[in-house]
Amino acid sequence: MALMTRDKYIESLRSLKKRVFIMGQEVESVVDHPLVRPSLNACATTYELAQQPEYADRMLATSNLTGQTVNRFTHLHQNTADLVAKVKMLRLLGQKTGCCFQRCVGMDAFNAMDSVTYEMDRALGTEYHARFRRYLQHVQEHDLVVDGAMTDPKGDRRLAPSQQADPDLFVHIVEKKPDGIVVRGAKLHQTGALNSHEIMVMPTQTLSEEDQDYAVAFAVPADAPGILMIYGRQPSDTRKLESSQLDVGNREFGGHEAVIILDDVFVPWERVFMAGEYAFSGLLVERFAGYHRQSYGGCKVGVGDVLIGTAQSLAQYHGTDKASHIKDKIVEMVHLNETMYACGIACSAEGKPTASGTYLIDLLLANVCKLNVTRFPYEIARLAQDIAGGLLVTLPSEKDLAHPEVGPFLAKYLRSVNRYTTEERCRMLRLMENLTLGPGAAAYLTESMHGAGSPQAQRIMLARLADLEEKMRLARRLAGITERPPQ
Amino acid sequence: MALMTRDKYIESLRSLKKRVFIMGQEVESVVDHPLVRPSLNACATTYELAQQPEYADRMLATSNLTGQTVNRFTHLHQNTADLVAKVKMLRLLGQKTGCCFQRCVGMDAFNAMDSVTYEMDRALGTEYHARFRRYLQHVQEHDLVVDGAMTDPKGDRRLAPSQQADPDLFVHIVEKKPDGIVVRGAKLHQTGALNSHEIMVMPTQTLSEEDQDYAVAFAVPADAPGILMIYGRQPSDTRKLESSQLDVGNREFGGHEAVIILDDVFVPWERVFMAGEYAFSGLLVERFAGYHRQSYGGCKVGVGDVLIGTAQSLAQYHGTDKASHIKDKIVEMVHLNETMYACGIACSAEGKPTASGTYLIDLLLANVCKLNVTRFPYEIARLAQDIAGGLLVTLPSEKDLAHPEVGPFLAKYLRSVNRYTTEERCRMLRLMENLTLGPGAAAYLTESMHGAGSPQAQRIMLARLADLEEKMRLARRLAGITERPPQ
Amino acid sequence: MALMTRDKYIESLRSLKKRVFIMGQEVESVVDHPLVRPSLNACATTYELAQQPEYADRMLATSNLTGQTVNRFTHLHQNTADLVAKVKMLRLLGQKTGCCFQRCVGMDAFNAMDSVTYEMDRALGTEYHARFRRYLQHVQEHDLVVDGAMTDPKGDRRLAPSQQADPDLFVHIVEKKPDGIVVRGAKLHQTGALNSHEIMVMPTQTLSEEDQDYAVAFAVPADAPGILMIYGRQPSDTRKLESSQLDVGNREFGGHEAVIILDDVFVPWERVFMAGEYAFSGLLVERFAGYHRQSYGGCKVGVGDVLIGTAQSLAQYHGTDKASHIKDKIVEMVHLNETMYACGIACSAEGKPTASGTYLIDLLLANVCKLNVTRFPYEIARLAQDIAGGLLVTLPSEKDLAHPEVGPFLAKYLRSVNRYTTEERCRMLRLMENLTLGPGAAAYLTESMHGAGSPQAQRIMLARLADLEEKMRLARRLAGITERPPQ
Amino acid sequence: MALMTRDKYIESLRSLKKRVFIMGQEVESVVDHPLVRPSLNACATTYELAQQPEYADRMLATSNLTGQTVNRFTHLHQNTADLVAKVKMLRLLGQKTGCCFQRCVGMDAFNAMDSVTYEMDRALGTEYHARFRRYLQHVQEHDLVVDGAMTDPKGDRRLAPSQQADPDLFVHIVEKKPDGIVVRGAKLHQTGALNSHEIMVMPTQTLSEEDQDYAVAFAVPADAPGILMIYGRQPSDTRKLESSQLDVGNREFGGHEAVIILDDVFVPWERVFMAGEYAFSGLLVERFAGYHRQSYGGCKVGVGDVLIGTAQSLAQYHGTDKASHIKDKIVEMVHLNETMYACGIACSAEGKPTASGTYLIDLLLANVCKLNVTRFPYEIARLAQDIAGGLLVTLPSEKDLAHPEVGPFLAKYLRSVNRYTTEERCRMLRLMENLTLGPGAAAYLTESMHGAGSPQAQRIMLARLADLEEKMRLARRLAGITERPPQ
Repeated sequence: MALMTRDKYIESLRSLKKRVFIMGQEVESVVDHPLVRPSLNACATTYELAQQPEYADRMLATSNLTGQTVNRFTHLHQNTADLVAKVKMLRLLGQKTGCCFQRCVGMDAFNAMDSVTYEMDRALGTEYHARFRRYLQHVQEHDLVVDGAMTDPKGDRRLAPSQQADPDLFVHIVEKKPDGIVVRGAKLHQTGALNSHEIMVMPTQTLSEEDQDYAVAFAVPADAPGILMIYGRQPSDTRKLESSQLDVGNREFGGHEAVIILDDVFVPWERVFMAGEYAFSGLLVERFAGYHRQSYGGCKVGVGDVLIGTAQSLAQYHGTDKASHIKDKIVEMVHLNETMYACGIACSAEGKPTASGTYLIDLLLANVCKLNVTRFPYEIARLAQDIAGGLLVTLPSEKDLAHPEVGPFLAKYLRSVNRYTTEERCRMLRLMENLTLGPGAAAYLTESMHGAGSPQAQRIMLARLADLEEKMRLARRLAGITERPPQ
Repeated sequence: MALMTRDKYIESLRSLKKRVFIMGQEVESVVDHPLVRPSLNACATTYELAQQPEYADRMLATSNLTGQTVNRFTHLHQNTADLVAKVKMLRLLGQKTGCCFQRCVGMDAFNAMDSVTYEMDRALGTEYHARFRRYLQHVQEHDLVVDGAMTDPKGDRRLAPSQQADPDLFVHIVEKKPDGIVVRGAKLHQTGALNSHEIMVMPTQTLSEEDQDYAVAFAVPADAPGILMIYGRQPSDTRKLESSQLDVGNREFGGHEAVIILDDVFVPWERVFMAGEYAFSGLLVERFAGYHRQSYGGCKVGVGDVLIGTAQSLAQYHGTDKASHIKDKIVEMVHLNETMYACGIACSAEGKPTASGTYLIDLLLANVCKLNVTRFPYEIARLAQDIAGGLLVTLPSEKDLAHPEVGPFLAKYLRSVNRYTTEERCRMLRLMENLTLGPGAAAYLTESMHGAGSPQAQRIMLARLADLEEKMRLARRLAGITERPPQ
Repeated sequence: MALMTRDKYIESLRSLKKRVFIMGQEVESVVDHPLVRPSLNACATTYELAQQPEYADRMLATSNLTGQTVNRFTHLHQNTADLVAKVKMLRLLGQKTGCCFQRCVGMDAFNAMDSVTYEMDRALGTEYHARFRRYLQHVQEHDLVVDGAMTDPKGDRRLAPSQQADPDLFVHIVEKKPDGIVVRGAKLHQTGALNSHEIMVMPTQTLSEEDQDYAVAFAVPADAPGILMIYGRQPSDTRKLESSQLDVGNREFGGHEAVIILDDVFVPWERVFMAGEYAFSGLLVERFAGYHRQSYGGCKVGVGDVLIGTAQSLAQYHGTDKASHIKDKIVEMVHLNETMYACGIACSAEGKPTASGTYLIDLLLANVCKLNVTRFPYEIARLAQDIAGGLLVTLPSEKDLAHPEVGPFLAKYLRSVNRYTTEERCRMLRLMENLTLGPGAAAYLTESMHGAGSPQAQRIMLARLADLEEKMRLARRLAGITERPPQ
Repeated sequence: MALMTRDKYIESLRSLKKRVFIMGQEVESVVDHPLVRPSLNACATTYELAQQPEYADRMLATSNLTGQTVNRFTHLHQNTADLVAKVKMLRLLGQKTGCCFQRCVGMDAFNAMDSVTYEMDRALGTEYHARFRRYLQHVQEHDLVVDGAMTDPKGDRRLAPSQQADPDLFVHIVEKKPDGIVVRGAKLHQTGALNSHEIMVMPTQTLSEEDQDYAVAFAVPADAPGILMIYGRQPSDTRKLESSQLDVGNREFGGHEAVIILDDVFVPWERVFMAGEYAFSGLLVERFAGYHRQSYGGCKVGVGDVLIGTAQSLAQYHGTDKASHIKDKIVEMVHLNETMYACGIACSAEGKPTASGTYLIDLLLANVCKLNVTRFPYEIARLAQDIAGGLLVTLPSEKDLAHPEVGPFLAKYLRSVNRYTTEERCRMLRLMENLTLGPGAAAYLTESMHGAGSPQAQRIMLARLADLEEKMRLARRLAGITERPPQ
């Protein structure tokens, strides 16, 4: 079995020589940085739960490459049961961490790359697929975290990559050498980049012939020369620097994103999976995005479970949990949360094999899933705030709670139902603040909006995948309109 | 193979001696009544498509009772594939008929009755299950339409059955005889009653000991002595009496509901499946409702496909189909429609076997499915009307279109994109009117609201099935709140 | 005082020789036609209430032309109090009729025409304004109903009037004579046309020089030679032919729309208010639409009051009016209804004088008003149906209620809270059916969508009227971004 | 003229000896504390704009007490024009500060107190009104900021004040002395408390006889002995401590709330406005809440203008401002924002005089206003985030932008449309982050939810104020149902 323990995972990161910048400073030991450690804890949970037998059905899979038991995050989906298990694994992890645990991007990249390299090879006679599978076997055997890196800076959104004022605004090949390629550019919003062993780069959009140098996909170690990572700020991030036990909200876990700069990075051919085959860039984007849109029907639902739990807890602390309007809001939150889950399950259950044998979700339903995810968490968060009351944003600091003069006043006056302590209430308020207005909201709200593509991207896919011609035929038949020859 | 043809089905109905009242008149030949015939056509489509090989995967199943191929509408679901196939069958039929085809209520009643009688027998030592399966075998062999009859009049909603001013406001046993029981009461909103061979009656709600006479379930022929059926009016129903080719909207299909009066009807013991076991009434209601809430994730989606098709067609006729706001509305309609479908698929894919071997959908997700169905068709209809334009409700009669003086004016002035005729446009407008404001709206909107239980019924189930205790535990763990002993 | 009684109004219509076609037949006495009479009753209510002192503040005004007391429907708004009173008058009439009472289109046309002819004269040296005011004085003195006719058939929506395959798809001048003009074309969706004394025609959109013949506005008697009117069908319209006391829902009132054909109609110059001044067509459309978008913040709110009343009544009849979820839905209906009203009031209170002295509503807020009206009535109707229960669309005919055999069964089984009769409940159900799925829904829903312009028209106005440059300046100032010279 | 300059206002605060605690420390000079100063700047803007002639119509009023020109924030509304001007003043200030400027709570308290003391005196023979007006004259003459303090801690929401485990969970009189009263308790969520000269305390809910000691209203200087203020944390508050020019988002302005502890504070009778008259507590709450619900139709709309400005700016920077889906989202934001404004204007324009002569808004419409405010800002924020893109929560620190090695990379890669600098884009992103996820969101979202009462409070008022009996009468009349004698 090729599984790492949580501790070994953390150790393995220490040995990397990544160049990381956090709030204006280059950081030596990222692993121990208090702004990063919560996100590392979250990612490490993907290792920890994989060791626990009660979660084996969700966390583990049998590799089709080696027959070994592997962490599902490194697995190629072999059937719809695998696709469904993925969604359940992600919900579980969302429940356990209350944040983004960062490892699905790599998983989704593997699965997309697998079928696309296969089909590309078949169409163009290239040899990427075997190369990719060798790479994936390496990932599985070492149980690695791989950052799937797609989003380019994109500059002026009206212009194609090669039309931009600066040609580097999309990652591209600047040199082809006998032993590999040299790439330049940047990838934005890289979830969990600081916790990754490797980075797998993909193009960000459908490309045309003029932009063939931008049609590039590859994997590199996260500490390859020329790679710089710059930590992205999140709301209330520096509470993690306050040695907070309470104001931080989510005591143990968090997430992060980073800008990755690729400053003329060399990639050996063995790690290159696309280099100029622009005609397949769109397919790769579509499949990766499809898998990732499915993912959100799991992970965000898990975080939603936590948020519903905070709301119900606060209602209990306040003595309002039996009020009909509160119960109704809780039901609405559950309803919206489970609707997203239903979409995650449905696109999985309706999955189909690709030519490489790897299963693909139903793309239409995966896009429907994500489009709901761009809406419902915001409404769930709004309802949660409704239930919480205004103290969510007016609660004094934990240092005030501990202050000899004002602490007792706060303990007295912020007590609600007598059975519960003021501290319990405050902790719960801070967790909800984290999820709806703090670092957790970066993941639960804004990432739900833009991760795996902004809503308009899903709408474009829906327009393409909805068979409107067929729907019109159905209508014409019922209305008694004779079919006419196509124009 | 125990399948009837469409024509034999219609013939088989002729031989029944049902007592049917339509708009104040007792009707001899219901089958030929122009108000009923469209609904018969819709129900007959469940026979017609079962004969067509391309739909065999959805329309047919292998009976677990006999090993015979049966119409899926008479089948007990043996696995999640059956549950998924059911949803796809219903979507297909919604697409083909653009209305309610009335046969799922019976199917959902069979599946609920099967597991509940099994569990009831096991708990109470009764012998209903074998009796029910003999009955179902008869249904399968004769490929019957069975009306699943649940909704009682209910009188004053604040009072239990036996507390009502009139004890008959819920169906109850008025006499137990050696050879059977005598029942009295009524069932409302009986979809497709006039097209049914049999009626299977179930209690409408959870009952307590005082109401044990109301805990009664049984099957009777639709023309059993003492049964009267009274046709329920629908919006614009009498257009069907106008010999309309166009104003009727849906040229061939429609639906109907009826009030069924049970005026001291005798039921032999062999057809009685519950008689006093009040403790199992709630379970039967919950399971039947669960299956039926799943159903709506199929049939209403199929009708939604038709409605989207009407909107897209009208946009094409008007020359607006490329306008961005129109495309956006179409995408929204598709999105909402597919979200309902995703819920239908998900609750099926997550189904589990009951003790009798019959598969039950995931109840939480089935309730989520239906709750979305109480909302989204209304919004889809609103968007459809937005795209259609006001002519939807200002279009003159087809008799005006044919009038020698004004007909040519209308043909001239109601022409839009030149490639399409005025008649095509008018037909499509009338179909949309049917679906959003006419008889089709009775099924697509109001029935989506109340069929299988009004939205509050789903909300109560969600409150029960959402594991709030677990969600609170998740939140407390992340907030660092120590678990305390239960109160 | 220049006010007609209700009876004189009806008599005055009899003397007109309109050519009207209803469902394929030319009709001699429109006034007595059972399909039209309910709409005439509604329009006549504008006369009836004007005679009642308790409504004088809303129904009457002092003419700025003559100093006489006139019906507000013929009045030019002289201040914001007039604008507010108009909204309140329309709400009152919506409450009293539960439908469209058809007279505001003319009022809105007068007010728009007044300021636009004034500004046109000032800019171009034409003499339309005095002419128009003479005409309006005539209208006031005879207390006439004038149909404001704007919407052309429009053909292919991508093409300008003169580019259409058929040049008549927009009303245009076909001949200019010494004594007047000859016009050809049609106007669709003409609310209350059959109940009007006169028709005032306006162009339907902003026109360019190529389309100057389409820039035409004028008034003609409703029975001028060459005018044909064709009645537009509504859902369930023929229930009015059933001598129904109950199934018709709204016992006394209704509405109608008609297609008006202008088959080379002659208009004397004294009644021509625009003839080629294409540059002012857009302004006229914008102002008329603005006033009419304000109107909907009154009339639809009044109908909403009735619909809320039906829902609350049914809840009372069923014994559910104290259930918290029912109360919550009623509150939501009230909230949405009053939000529309607030928009109607606000755009009135913020009105400003035009150059002619006539007051114009705040255009931005009037468009906001109407955009809400394209949404909220649909949601109010959905909530109403939720409260009503499924009987709304499954209730047997009133002839069944009166049938000697089944009538007593229905009276027995459709009784709910004992204090109320079955008939009361049925009447209320039919009224709600009328408003949400019947002829009332044509006005309350579809007309709310498309009347005064479809939602996209309001959105375009919002985009134009929202001062985005100013909003960006506000944001830059707060963000500390230096202003740069314009590009 | 009794107006202070901005600078004198700030100086006047320095002379107070308030006891203030911020994050565990007692603070000497609150005015200069970097966490508080932005909120002081916002409040000071109410002084600054009052000095600028172009805003005189909104900022100034003529006191009915003295005939002097006063800041509108200290004025009693004398007519509907005053009520409308108030809403416009608040929108202006929201636009200028992008946050809560804290001074309306006092204004709303004055206006409520004025009419309630008048009516209370008339009913009970007390003498509060003259006393209150003397106090208000003092406020006007010194142009003071008065914190209107209503919300008590409330403890267990199921229990009345005197039933709580701790009797101090609602502010109450603990001693009545010849020269005044001694009060104990706390007030939560006190907006702008640290910037106030005075505190005016009111009861938080309708009280019954048992709770008459809780029926207490009075004014005290903010530095009266026994008063402690504890600063409430906001999301990302400590960015203000980072000497940030950019990450802080809103460069100059902010808000704050505080817990106010009243630890046996003495109040002389001359400043007591209610002391035991429990029967008037509900009226005071209702009127204060009514005025404050109106306020939100101004201030939140002004902040909404800023947020729309940030979204449009970012669209411009990205080159997406011409994309139809972006334009559509901007229009939707404008629509929702103006709908709230319309409600603010409408409840003002429909205001009526109270017995004291002070004008009261239309309560029904003011509650409708606030209920919309509990929803629309959340949707506006969601749409803003949609337009902004994910960089909103992944943007590196401004220290990274200034870093010698990574700064240039960020400047290069975060550039979008070439005409705009990376810094401009980053500043705008940080402003939107502030408004939707940072300290601005505390005011724009959570305060919109709970300020002036949580949504359920508005719903209860709507249920009370909607005349359902009248609506049912309207429905019965149209349905032809005879009125029956009341039960």
